[in-house]
Amino acid sequence: MKVELLSITPYAEKLIENIGRTSYLSFEKQKKGTYVDFINMLIKNDDLSVLEHAYATFRIIGNSRAFTHQLVRHRLCSYTQQSQRYVDEHNFKYVEPESIKNDKSAHNLFINFMNKAKEIYSELQKLGIANEDARFVLPNAVESEIAITANFRQWRHIMEIRGHPDAQWEIRTTVIEILKILKKHAPTVFADFQIDDEKKIVTKTEI
Amino acid sequence: MKVELLSITPYAEKLIENIGRTSYLSFEKQKKGTYVDFINMLIKNDDLSVLEHAYATFRIIGNSRAFTHQLVRHRLCSYTQQSQRYVDEHNFKYVEPESIKNDKSAHNLFINFMNKAKEIYSELQKLGIANEDARFVLPNAVESEIAITANFRQWRHIMEIRGHPDAQWEIRTTVIEILKILKKHAPTVFADFQIDDEKKIVTKTEI
Amino acid sequence: MKVELLSITPYAEKLIENIGRTSYLSFEKQKKGTYVDFINMLIKNDDLSVLEHAYATFRIIGNSRAFTHQLVRHRLCSYTQQSQRYVDEHNFKYVEPESIKNDKSAHNLFINFMNKAKEIYSELQKLGIANEDARFVLPNAVESEIAITANFRQWRHIMEIRGHPDAQWEIRTTVIEILKILKKHAPTVFADFQIDDEKKIVTKTEI
Amino acid sequence: MKVELLSITPYAEKLIENIGRTSYLSFEKQKKGTYVDFINMLIKNDDLSVLEHAYATFRIIGNSRAFTHQLVRHRLCSYTQQSQRYVDEHNFKYVEPESIKNDKSAHNLFINFMNKAKEIYSELQKLGIANEDARFVLPNAVESEIAITANFRQWRHIMEIRGHPDAQWEIRTTVIEILKILKKHAPTVFADFQIDDEKKIVTKTEI
Repeated sequence: MKVELLSITPYAEKLIENIGRTSYLSFEKQKKGTYVDFINMLIKNDDLSVLEHAYATFRIIGNSRAFTHQLVRHRLCSYTQQSQRYVDEHNFKYVEPESIKNDKSAHNLFINFMNKAKEIYSELQKLGIANEDARFVLPNAVESEIAITANFRQWRHIMEIRGHPDAQWEIRTTVIEILKILKKHAPTVFADFQIDDEKKIVTKTEI
Repeated sequence: MKVELLSITPYAEKLIENIGRTSYLSFEKQKKGTYVDFINMLIKNDDLSVLEHAYATFRIIGNSRAFTHQLVRHRLCSYTQQSQRYVDEHNFKYVEPESIKNDKSAHNLFINFMNKAKEIYSELQKLGIANEDARFVLPNAVESEIAITANFRQWRHIMEIRGHPDAQWEIRTTVIEILKILKKHAPTVFADFQIDDEKKIVTKTEI
Repeated sequence: MKVELLSITPYAEKLIENIGRTSYLSFEKQKKGTYVDFINMLIKNDDLSVLEHAYATFRIIGNSRAFTHQLVRHRLCSYTQQSQRYVDEHNFKYVEPESIKNDKSAHNLFINFMNKAKEIYSELQKLGIANEDARFVLPNAVESEIAITANFRQWRHIMEIRGHPDAQWEIRTTVIEILKILKKHAPTVFADFQIDDEKKIVTKTEI
Repeated sequence: MKVELLSITPYAEKLIENIGRTSYLSFEKQKKGTYVDFINMLIKNDDLSVLEHAYATFRIIGNSRAFTHQLVRHRLCSYTQQSQRYVDEHNFKYVEPESIKNDKSAHNLFINFMNKAKEIYSELQKLGIANEDARFVLPNAVESEIAITANFRQWRHIMEIRGHPDAQWEIRTTVIEILKILKKHAPTVFADFQIDDEKKIVTKTEI
């Protein structure tokens, strides 16, 4: 799995302070570095609507369709995803869960089945079946590339829900990689989210 | 595939007129049957926001995960879907595309592969793999039950996009079944959508 | 101020259980009265998406434009509002804040100013100014009728935000009236919200 | 009225092509300048979801609350607005409609009434009435600063709806100023929108 930052609002944290001061017309208070306290106050007061003015876009490569089917349920984001109706998937890549990889018998069953799926998909193609129908044999494990754009308020929400121990491992490990990048570019906005790289979970601390 | 109406706003068309008259405070004009002209005027003027106050909820049974992955991209609806993380899928049902069913060789390949998928899934379970990881072998064809709620404006939008000849066959045939039910309960709101049951497409006529 | 229920999902709480059981395909567990425990579990687990399948629509009469400008910021609801571009407002009604009503001098200033506003609006009309421009003199106090539809998850969110002591008094008192009605029709879904009719606030208790 | 660009997605049009090619995994086709044809194709096919990955944020200064109450009805945007609950408005600025400005009698009535409104607001303040209640006398004409962020698909939608001859003059003239800026930064995405600076309307030509 690879997460790549495609775009992020320039000077996002200063922009957030600048826009946030519209409510009170207190622009004269914005000075060098004041955005840190300002954003901390927003987060402390759970007054997050101002964070919606900053955006980040990522490309996610090497995740399964099981993952993307969960991801696209977040309605306040925008997605563009590899289409199995159009892309020829006869030589698809796939994701193997750790629990399967770590069990030799399971691993062999899994690998052989993936090869079987490729074979059947190709044979269906040769029989003249269109990709959009041949794909009915493709397993959940098949990789599907996706680009996602969300605003900072939404990214915070996604971290809470999808970094939680109850979330599925593939989505948890992915949002951790996204969070690492967001923390570099907007350290104040995401300061209260802590990454546990061992357990692959995200926790939120009170600010 | 089976579509079942679970809930619909009672007296939806009269409610739409009643609420629509709020803009002009013209409630005295609402009389027996005036809702027909009122709704026709809204649709003619593409003034569809009032249609958002009426809702319909459907249960869709017997469709594939290929279908549900498309459906849930409509962001202004609400969904509750059968979870492959929790439900035991060792004896899953599946959807077979017509193009495959109509070709004997393709059909045999398909059927055998589905049985293979069940077998592998069960073996992985026996090896102690959790359902949420075993499901990585499940094909797109696997059935997934889903309930969807949308307002009438959204349903009109879905009919336009997903009843169009370019849409995938499974989603086209499903929205046609939904449209038939909506036309019974809200004939005026959906009057300009025509169903072609032969070609399985929806067309929109100017009102 | 008057709040009137225009529409609500029939048998909403049973519907919520019925749809919620889709995730686990556990329909056989739904029996007489089991919806109470089921909904309590959803709320306890903060698993609120299933509540989106039930809706309630209200007409709100006798509130100010100051109120409606706040209300329409809730984006996941639908609104139809009296239009000052089209409705003749020469004899508008208005909302007087308690703090003004309770101070004789303030009260007199306020009343006279409202009459002045009516007078100027009418004179502008007589000079041939269209309603959509004459309305620029109309004060925030002017009443504006509005209909709002939201799903139960949204209504819970609105209760939390707008019933909070920090919220403005007009919106607080309005959501309390709405909550009273919702509690009658969906007592389980809104059980954890408590109304303080003295202080005019809503508080949420842990379930 | 003044419109100021606060932020826009860098290299937006190239980003749109880059993300759009995810559906078909056709990245090898992206070359110098190919984004123009790619975006034209998206618009021609009404395939606009890819445009959601690019954003623009504006500050709008010197418009009325009549304007902002309309603007915030666009639900898929983000707003931060000057708060009349917190800002002291005793010396407010205001917007005077052309139709009033051009009629001497109307103009005098209007100016005097605005001064009266300031006077009453100040007197209420002196009597100890809080700003959040004193504002009930403030007219629709009072200026309210607002920042708005929307993606390019939304901006196209806003241009269609709010640049239309039926839209109110204040919102029409404002979206024209926004469109001029968007056309500079994303000329391909907004190429099919034409500005009529005389009539202050936006028209859309088939591409």
